[in-house]
Amino acid sequence: MTTVDPTTGTCPAPFPETERVLLGHGAGGRLSAELIAGVLVPALGSAADRGPLEDAALVRMDGTDLALSTDAYVVDPLFFPGGDIGALAVHGTVNDLAMRAAMPVALTLAYVVEEGLPLADLRRVTASAGAAAEAAGVPVVTGDTKVVGRGAADRLFVITAGLGRRLPGAAPSAAGARPGDAILLSGPLGCHGVTVLSTREGLGFEVDLASDTQPLHRLVGTMVAAGGDAVHALRDPTRGGLAASLNEIAVASGVGAEIDERALPVPEPVRAACEMLGLDPAYVANEGCLVAFVAPDRAEAVLTAMRARPEARDAVRIGTVVPDGPVVVRTAVGARRVLDMPLGEQLPRIC
Amino acid sequence: MTTVDPTTGTCPAPFPETERVLLGHGAGGRLSAELIAGVLVPALGSAADRGPLEDAALVRMDGTDLALSTDAYVVDPLFFPGGDIGALAVHGTVNDLAMRAAMPVALTLAYVVEEGLPLADLRRVTASAGAAAEAAGVPVVTGDTKVVGRGAADRLFVITAGLGRRLPGAAPSAAGARPGDAILLSGPLGCHGVTVLSTREGLGFEVDLASDTQPLHRLVGTMVAAGGDAVHALRDPTRGGLAASLNEIAVASGVGAEIDERALPVPEPVRAACEMLGLDPAYVANEGCLVAFVAPDRAEAVLTAMRARPEARDAVRIGTVVPDGPVVVRTAVGARRVLDMPLGEQLPRIC
Repeated sequence: MTTVDPTTGTCPAPFPETERVLLGHGAGGRLSAELIAGVLVPALGSAADRGPLEDAALVRMDGTDLALSTDAYVVDPLFFPGGDIGALAVHGTVNDLAMRAAMPVALTLAYVVEEGLPLADLRRVTASAGAAAEAAGVPVVTGDTKVVGRGAADRLFVITAGLGRRLPGAAPSAAGARPGDAILLSGPLGCHGVTVLSTREGLGFEVDLASDTQPLHRLVGTMVAAGGDAVHALRDPTRGGLAASLNEIAVASGVGAEIDERALPVPEPVRAACEMLGLDPAYVANEGCLVAFVAPDRAEAVLTAMRARPEARDAVRIGTVVPDGPVVVRTAVGARRVLDMPLGEQLPRIC
Repeated sequence: MTTVDPTTGTCPAPFPETERVLLGHGAGGRLSAELIAGVLVPALGSAADRGPLEDAALVRMDGTDLALSTDAYVVDPLFFPGGDIGALAVHGTVNDLAMRAAMPVALTLAYVVEEGLPLADLRRVTASAGAAAEAAGVPVVTGDTKVVGRGAADRLFVITAGLGRRLPGAAPSAAGARPGDAILLSGPLGCHGVTVLSTREGLGFEVDLASDTQPLHRLVGTMVAAGGDAVHALRDPTRGGLAASLNEIAVASGVGAEIDERALPVPEPVRAACEMLGLDPAYVANEGCLVAFVAPDRAEAVLTAMRARPEARDAVRIGTVVPDGPVVVRTAVGARRVLDMPLGEQLPRIC
């Protein structure tokens, strides 16, 4: 099996593990990382931007730090409690920009539509995207719509890109975590993934749950105002959940992490669903929370500032960065277990 | 039937013509315009950028004019003589920026992949996108890959977005054409559309043809250097072909146009294929030429500069902007026929 070298983030070509794309290659776990490092970046050649895999890329222009990000959304179903593919696409791109401390300036919106989609669905998704953009204070400046024949796509895919401008005074990066940093989590785990899965499969958990999809840029603005350059790294734990985010930051920063399991906020319906389905909430996708790595002397100030925002009123400290080793969870009875990078797909088409 | 008001570019909601999305809604013709004006822009509400529909949006930041564009590519087949979906996606976004006189600064690249796609295909498409980006002098700074199950997409869709910086001294806009402007065309018509269609259907015309896919930003740089603000409008005639581009510019600028049919450069294999298939070359998609509307006193200088570039050595003047009326073609025998906006899909999944 091909493995990613944790020091370089690369793995050997020509990718012997499989000759075809698997669902897991899009799941945000180790297979995704291997596809990016073993196929996509080498194939792009010198056109590829090298460096740690960030949520958004920085582009310096005339002394201004801009950020650029893109996301493709294939969530099934299109509509679910708490949101839909349109709002999700806007929030996801706004949040990817925010993870680099960039405030959104403009969004693009592209659709791949299956012939026969009810126009009412397209109108509803578009209205939701528009409302989400307006609430986030960012215009949708351009778009594209392609239609493919019946059976050549599953109803609707939405692809957003975002341009942002970085806040002065902060430079969070996936490679920025330092030993001793406090690890903060802005909200409860698992609501988005369990809601989408439960709605799709008709499991009934969605009655008590809703996706947490929301924009996080204003929260980040508050955190940067309170913590400045002590905000070392930010990530929104979407595909692959908290486990993937912690492992990505740890690898890119060359550090380890210790997480206190008792501190992890898992709502009761999420816990019940995960127990029934054999899922670990730490691997379930979220769309409205972030994990932050903050220098210890500013961590309390940042946490207090977070809790003053409605997006993060339940923010908690969940652990500490350590010099090396894997990401480890300390359980209620004091045992330690490794929180691995997920391999592939726990929940397909969750975003 | 819903019609677009030629003076405002809008049409009445709630879009009574059809209740479902048709293939033609993504074809770049009248149905596309109606979908945008009747469904998408109203649904986006105040988040939508108002104004003429341009190839790329302008975003002013700290006194610098940036341009932002996005395109979704669903071309079938993925590979064809002269190019593939990867190169096409890069060129298409570079060209959309160029149509606003913006030089590309950074690209994003997103994939929606069908489970089971050979990794070799993904590698080949990515290498082609990387080579195209490198040749255009623009880095791919970020991306996203989603995988959906078998049958939920047709192999691979590629979505690019581009950030550009506007050249000083030129402000081409779809609304910029003026009566008396010379209408210039940079290269032969129909090569891309006929090549893709012929390859897909195994018609054999592709033996003598190749897609014209190429980046046009350096050509635009040359034109702006020669013509400055006399370059009033630029458009690359992709979906819907030359006819759609001419009608879009005419509507947005509130003018008419007269085209000399004898001046239209149609390669013999394109003419033969179009005759056999009942297509009009003026409606077939191109991916490597542009149509320019240039003030008459600078038209010859711009045309000479165009011909000095390899992308446009066969550039010709094809007509003149007139104060009003439809887009009209004057045939070899002196007859006049209206070159309408295409309704919908002449060739599905051509880009």
